Amino acid sequence: MRTDEILSYYTSDCPATIGKLEWMLNQGKLGGTGKMIILPVDQGFEHGPARSFAANPPAYDPEYHVKLALDAGLNAYAAPLGFIEAVARDYCAKIPLILKANSHDVLMGEDNPVPAMTASVDHAIRLGCAAIGYTVYPGSAFRVDMYEQLNELADEAKAAGLAVVVWSYPRGQDLSKEGETAIDVGAYAAQIGCQLGAHIVKVKLPGPNIEQDKARKVYEEQKVKIDTIADRVRHVIQSAFDGKRIIIFSGGSKIPKEQVLEQVRGIRDGGGFGSIIGRNVFQRPREEAIALLDELIEIYKGG
Amino acid sequence: MRTDEILSYYTSDCPATIGKLEWMLNQGKLGGTGKMIILPVDQGFEHGPARSFAANPPAYDPEYHVKLALDAGLNAYAAPLGFIEAVARDYCAKIPLILKANSHDVLMGEDNPVPAMTASVDHAIRLGCAAIGYTVYPGSAFRVDMYEQLNELADEAKAAGLAVVVWSYPRGQDLSKEGETAIDVGAYAAQIGCQLGAHIVKVKLPGPNIEQDKARKVYEEQKVKIDTIADRVRHVIQSAFDGKRIIIFSGGSKIPKEQVLEQVRGIRDGGGFGSIIGRNVFQRPREEAIALLDELIEIYKGG
Amino acid sequence: MRTDEILSYYTSDCPATIGKLEWMLNQGKLGGTGKMIILPVDQGFEHGPARSFAANPPAYDPEYHVKLALDAGLNAYAAPLGFIEAVARDYCAKIPLILKANSHDVLMGEDNPVPAMTASVDHAIRLGCAAIGYTVYPGSAFRVDMYEQLNELADEAKAAGLAVVVWSYPRGQDLSKEGETAIDVGAYAAQIGCQLGAHIVKVKLPGPNIEQDKARKVYEEQKVKIDTIADRVRHVIQSAFDGKRIIIFSGGSKIPKEQVLEQVRGIRDGGGFGSIIGRNVFQRPREEAIALLDELIEIYKGG
Amino acid sequence: MRTDEILSYYTSDCPATIGKLEWMLNQGKLGGTGKMIILPVDQGFEHGPARSFAANPPAYDPEYHVKLALDAGLNAYAAPLGFIEAVARDYCAKIPLILKANSHDVLMGEDNPVPAMTASVDHAIRLGCAAIGYTVYPGSAFRVDMYEQLNELADEAKAAGLAVVVWSYPRGQDLSKEGETAIDVGAYAAQIGCQLGAHIVKVKLPGPNIEQDKARKVYEEQKVKIDTIADRVRHVIQSAFDGKRIIIFSGGSKIPKEQVLEQVRGIRDGGGFGSIIGRNVFQRPREEAIALLDELIEIYKGG
Amino acid sequence: MRTDEILSYYTSDCPATIGKLEWMLNQGKLGGTGKMIILPVDQGFEHGPARSFAANPPAYDPEYHVKLALDAGLNAYAAPLGFIEAVARDYCAKIPLILKANSHDVLMGEDNPVPAMTASVDHAIRLGCAAIGYTVYPGSAFRVDMYEQLNELADEAKAAGLAVVVWSYPRGQDLSKEGETAIDVGAYAAQIGCQLGAHIVKVKLPGPNIEQDKARKVYEEQKVKIDTIADRVRHVIQSAFDGKRIIIFSGGSKIPKEQVLEQVRGIRDGGGFGSIIGRNVFQRPREEAIALLDELIEIYKGG
Repeated sequence: MRTDEILSYYTSDCPATIGKLEWMLNQGKLGGTGKMIILPVDQGFEHGPARSFAANPPAYDPEYHVKLALDAGLNAYAAPLGFIEAVARDYCAKIPLILKANSHDVLMGEDNPVPAMTASVDHAIRLGCAAIGYTVYPGSAFRVDMYEQLNELADEAKAAGLAVVVWSYPRGQDLSKEGETAIDVGAYAAQIGCQLGAHIVKVKLPGPNIEQDKARKVYEEQKVKIDTIADRVRHVIQSAFDGKRIIIFSGGSKIPKEQVLEQVRGIRDGGGFGSIIGRNVFQRPREEAIALLDELIEIYKGG
Repeated sequence: MRTDEILSYYTSDCPATIGKLEWMLNQGKLGGTGKMIILPVDQGFEHGPARSFAANPPAYDPEYHVKLALDAGLNAYAAPLGFIEAVARDYCAKIPLILKANSHDVLMGEDNPVPAMTASVDHAIRLGCAAIGYTVYPGSAFRVDMYEQLNELADEAKAAGLAVVVWSYPRGQDLSKEGETAIDVGAYAAQIGCQLGAHIVKVKLPGPNIEQDKARKVYEEQKVKIDTIADRVRHVIQSAFDGKRIIIFSGGSKIPKEQVLEQVRGIRDGGGFGSIIGRNVFQRPREEAIALLDELIEIYKGG
Repeated sequence: MRTDEILSYYTSDCPATIGKLEWMLNQGKLGGTGKMIILPVDQGFEHGPARSFAANPPAYDPEYHVKLALDAGLNAYAAPLGFIEAVARDYCAKIPLILKANSHDVLMGEDNPVPAMTASVDHAIRLGCAAIGYTVYPGSAFRVDMYEQLNELADEAKAAGLAVVVWSYPRGQDLSKEGETAIDVGAYAAQIGCQLGAHIVKVKLPGPNIEQDKARKVYEEQKVKIDTIADRVRHVIQSAFDGKRIIIFSGGSKIPKEQVLEQVRGIRDGGGFGSIIGRNVFQRPREEAIALLDELIEIYKGG
Repeated sequence: MRTDEILSYYTSDCPATIGKLEWMLNQGKLGGTGKMIILPVDQGFEHGPARSFAANPPAYDPEYHVKLALDAGLNAYAAPLGFIEAVARDYCAKIPLILKANSHDVLMGEDNPVPAMTASVDHAIRLGCAAIGYTVYPGSAFRVDMYEQLNELADEAKAAGLAVVVWSYPRGQDLSKEGETAIDVGAYAAQIGCQLGAHIVKVKLPGPNIEQDKARKVYEEQKVKIDTIADRVRHVIQSAFDGKRIIIFSGGSKIPKEQVLEQVRGIRDGGGFGSIIGRNVFQRPREEAIALLDELIEIYKGG
Repeated sequence: MRTDEILSYYTSDCPATIGKLEWMLNQGKLGGTGKMIILPVDQGFEHGPARSFAANPPAYDPEYHVKLALDAGLNAYAAPLGFIEAVARDYCAKIPLILKANSHDVLMGEDNPVPAMTASVDHAIRLGCAAIGYTVYPGSAFRVDMYEQLNELADEAKAAGLAVVVWSYPRGQDLSKEGETAIDVGAYAAQIGCQLGAHIVKVKLPGPNIEQDKARKVYEEQKVKIDTIADRVRHVIQSAFDGKRIIIFSGGSKIPKEQVLEQVRGIRDGGGFGSIIGRNVFQRPREEAIALLDELIEIYKGG
C-alpha cells in the first residue's frame, strides 16, 4: 500500500507519531491512496469573519466546517484554537484534527509578517488533535523567531506523539509580490519546511517565474523544467527530499471550478501529495462544495 | 434553562471552568436568563484616580464597587490586582470576581498600545477569583506579544478551572479613530477573541461605518445588514461563532441615561449576551446607579 | 491601636507578610502610631558615591546608615544589595531591612529611565529582610517591563511572607520636568503603585500644578482641593484606595531644616502615613541628623 | 597514536564526549592519523535546493550524502534537522552524525547575519548523533545572541556526552567582504570558537590580507609569516590554543580540482587538522567525488 | 592576620564562599598580607590572538599563563571558558581559577559595548573554579542587561559556594574617552560593583580628571583630594564601602617597567588591595615577567 511506502520515509519518529500520520493518510475517501485533501479554516482569524463567511453564512458556525470535512470524506480538518475547542469533543475521534498553533490577522499592515503563537502542544493533547499546524514566513525579518518557535513546538509535539504540519509561505521585505509564488522561492520554501522537521509541508502552487538571480543562473544552466504546473510540482517535490516528505498545495482565494480542477490535475501529474483547500470549499454552498470535492477526489484517485 | 444551552457550547472545558461560567450566568438578578451585566473598575489604573472617581468620591474606596455590584444584583465584578486584593477575602464567595491580568496607563502617549501583565493565574487562585480578564489590542504593533501572553495565561487559567474573559479593543497605527468602532473591525475583534480561546469576549458597541476596503467590498456584495444597533449586534454575535460564545458590549464614557437605555435595548434586540458597564455606573451617585442598573436588568429580562 | 486598623486593610495577605508589616509599623519611636519614617540609602548607586557621601564622609561606610536608623528610632532601613549584604547579619533582627530589588545609575543620560533588577526575593530571604523594595517609573517607555517585573517579584515576595514597598516615580518622554511632581501625576502614581499590589507606596510630595489636560478638566469641574501641602497629601491618600494603603512621601535633595519640618507638618495634616527621608538625614552630621529626626518624630506623634 | 595525543588536550570533558571525539578521529580511511574530512550538507537550507543540488540531481535525496560520506571513508557527516531525521535510524551507528543546531537562509538580505536555532541537544540525543554543530558569525550585530545560545547549547551537549563543532564565520557591518577571510580575522575566528568551548572549529581558509589596523601593526612589528597557505594555516592553528584544539578548514564554492588539491596540501603542510568540504563533493557526480576524496585522503595521509 | 580582618567584612556569605576568598587571599607569595596580584588572560577573545600573543609566542598556549601565575606566586588566574577548560584538570587544585563568565570581541565597533555570556556557574563548578568573573560596562546602553545577568549569576554563584569578581569598566555613549578613567567615574564604578554584590571589584586606575558636572561640584565643594595616584586610590577604596570590599586595579596596555612600579607604589600607598595585571606580564618574556612580578610583590609586602 502506498501509505506504508510513505510512512517508511519517516524513520526517526516514535510509533505514536507514525500512527497519527497513518490515520491522516488512511482517513476518508482517499484513504490508502497516498493522496490527501485537508480542509483548513483559519480565515476568520487571518482575514476577518465577514470576508470569510458572509458569502455562505452557515460557515460562521464552527461545526459547519468539520462536519463538511467529515461528510465529504476528506483526510483532516485544520483550524485555530477557538474553532477546534468548539468541536473537539464531538469530532476528535471521527476525523484527524490539526490545531493551528500560530495565527495572524490583518488589522495592521506590514512588510514582514509575524504570526502569534495562539495554541500549544498541551492544547493539542487535551483536545485530542492528531497534529499541530504552524505557519512560517521565510523571507520575513521575523523568520528567526518563527523557526525557533517551530523548532521547540515540533520537538514537543513529536515527544507527545503528534504529527507536525508546516505552512511555508515566503513573504518579506526583499521578496516581490510575484516572487512569493516564484518557482525558486516555492521550492526553497518546501526545502525549509522539511529541514525544520515537518512531516507535512503546505506550499502555494508556484508559477513559472524565478525571483532570485543566483537561482535563475542555476535553473538556466541546469535546464530545470518548470513550464507546466506538473513540471513545477515535480520540481517542488524533488526539492523536498526527493519525494520523501509529504508536500501538499494550497488553493488560495476562490476561483472558478474549472481552474481548481486544472490545478489539481497538475498536482496529480507532478506527483504532489494532495491539496489543502479552504475558501474554494467553504465559500461555496455545501452541496456545491461537496460535489467539487468529489471531483477532486476522483482526480487524485486516478493519479 | 438558557444557562444550560449556553454552557452546552463550551464542550472542551473541564467541569471546574464550566462551574465558574455557570456561577457567573446564574448570579444576581439576571441569573438564569442567559444575560449578564458585569461591573468593571479598572479606570483608576487606565485613566487615573481623579478622572475616574472625583465625580463620585466614595468610589475612591475599592469596597464601594464590589458592594455596589453585589447590591445591584449584577453577575460579576472585574478589577486589577490592587482593587481585588482589597476585597477578595470579604467578597470572593458572594459574587464572581474577575481579576484583570493586564493593565495600561496614560502617562505616556502612543499609537500602538501595549498593556503590562500585572496579575497572574496564581494571584487569581489565591484570591478566589472566578475568572481572569485580559485585554488585547488587535491592530497594535504589539498584538503578537499580547496574543502570546493571553495564550499562555488562558491555558494556565483553564487548567486551574477558571474562566477566561477577553477585552478585545482594536487600536493601532493603521486604524483610524472611528475605525476602532467600525462594524467590520468590531466583528473581527469578536472573532479574534473567540479564536484565542476566550469564554467571554467584551467588545465595544460598533457603529455603522466600515474601516477596511477589502471588508467593505464583502459587506456590500453580500448585503450584510448593519443599519441599526440591533443589526450590528446581531452581526457581531454571528461573527463570534454564530452565537456559540458569550459576547458582551461595553458602555464607554459616561453618557445620558436615555442613551444607555437605547444601547441596551439594541443589544437585547440583536441577541447580545449583555453589558459590561463601568463609568456609567460608578460616576453616578450610588442610588442613581442602582436605579439605572435596575432598568437595564428589566430590559434584558424582557429580551 | 492604629496599627491594627491599618493592618485590617490588608485582608488578602498571609500571616507572615502581615507580620512583616506589623513589625515595620511597630518598630522604633513611632511604633504603634500608624506613622513611619524610613531611611533609604540607595544614592551611592543612583547618583554616585562622592555626590552622596562626600559631605559627610562617615556615610561611605554601609554600617553608618543602618546604625543611624536604629539609633534614631526609625521604622525601617532600605538599601541595594551590596549595602544590605554588608550589614544584614548584624542588623536584620534589630530593625526591618528593605532590600531594593532594582537600581539605576546616571552614567548614561536618558528620557525614559529603566532600572535594572539587582536583587531577588531569594536574596531578601537569605539576608533576613522584612520587605522587598522596587522602583517603577510610570510614564517611561519601559514601564511595561517594570510593571511585569514587579508583578512577578511581588507575587514571589508575598508567597515568601515578605512585604512589598514600591517607589512610584513618574518620569518619561511625555512628562515635563515639573509634571513629574504635578498633583494629578502624583495621585496617579500612588494609584498605580497600589493597583500593582504594593503594601507601601512611596511617592514624591506633589506640587499644586496639573500636568495632563484631561485631568485638569476634572480637577476644575469637581473642584478638587489642592492648594496646600496638606490638601495635596489628602488627595493622594484618597487616590490610594481612600486611605486603605500606606503611602509615604519622600524628601528629595537636601533642603533647609525648616523646609523639611514644614513638609512633614503638611504630610501629617493631610493624613499621610509618614516619610522616607535619605539625603536630608545622611548628608547632615550624625548628631544633627538625629536631632532633626527627633523633631520629625514629634511632629508625627502629634498627628 | 596521534588520536590519543589530540584527545589528551581535552582534559575537562567527560568520558562520553571524549568517546565521541575518538570515534570521529578514528572513523574512515583517515582513522588514527589525526586528520579529518567531514562532509557538510546544509546548503539546501542555506542557499536553496536548486542552487545546491540541480547540478547533481541524485543529491536532492538526503540519503545520497550520508551514504557518500560512508562509502568514501570520511570521518563524519553534518546536516540540519530534516536531513538528519531522514537518515539517522539507518546510519547513526555507521558514521558519526553532526546535527547542525542552527540554520540560515537567503530569502532576505542582511548586513548582519543571524541564524535561527533549528535543532536541539534533545534532538541530537534522540537521533543518535555524535556531535552538535553551531554557526557563529563574529562581527555580526547579533553575535551576542549567538555566543549565548552556543554557550547554553554547548553546556547541555557536554553534559549529554556529545562533542561540539563550531562553524566560526566572521561577517558583519564593519567587516569588508575580503576582510571575512583576512588572516587576522580568520585567526581571531578560530580563537573565538575555541574560547567558546568548541571541541572542533571550522574556519574558512584565510587569505594573505589583513583587515584591522590594530592587528596589522602587530603582524608587521612581530613579522608574523602569512605568505603561503601553509604559513597562514600554521598561524591559525597557533592562534587556536597553539595546536591544542582541532581546527578544520572549509572549501567554499565549487572550484577546479587542482585548486582543491593545492588548498589541501597547504592545510597539511601548515599542520591543519583537515577539511570540511561540501559543494566540491556533492556538486560533482558520485564517482568523480569519491575519486577526488581519495586524492585528498592520500594527501592528508602523507602529512 | 589581615586576611581574617578582610574576611570579617563579608558577613552574609556562606562558609564555602568565604573559603574561596580565603584561598585567594592566602595563595602565593602575598598570602596572608591582604594584598593580591591576579593574572587575567582574556585578551585572546577581547582583542584577538596575534595582538595579544605574537609579541611572546609561547603565550598562545593556554597552559603558559596558568603555569606562570603559579610559578610567580600570584593569588589567582582568570580566563574565559576555553582557556580554563584547557587547564582546569591539571591546575584547579594548585591555584584559584576565576572563570570569566562573559566576553567581548572587537570585530564590530560600537559606542555602547555589550559582552556575551560565554560561561555559566555550572561550568565553574564542573571545572573546579574558585570564582566567577563578570564584566559590567556602566554607562553602556546595555548596562541593564549586564546588571541583571550579573545579579542572577552572582546569586547562583554564591549559592554554589563560589566567589564573585566583577570587572567594572565605565564605557558608553555619554562618556568621553578620558571620562572612562576619570576619578568620579572610577569611584562610581567601584561603588556599582560593590552594590551589585561583588566580593572583589576590578577597576581601572583613575586619573585626576572629573567627567560629570554634578560630581565636579561636589569634589570641589568638599575638597576631595585626588592629586596623586595614592589620593585617587584612597578615594576609590573609600567609595567602595569605606574599605570593606576588595578593590584591585588593572594595568592596561603594556607600559615601561618603571611606570608599572610607580602605579603599584601608588596603589599600595592609597590602601588598594592589589593589582590585576595581564598584558604587562604575558607580553614580556617569561623570565622578565617573573622578575617584574617579584618586584611588585615586594612593593605590596612593604605596604
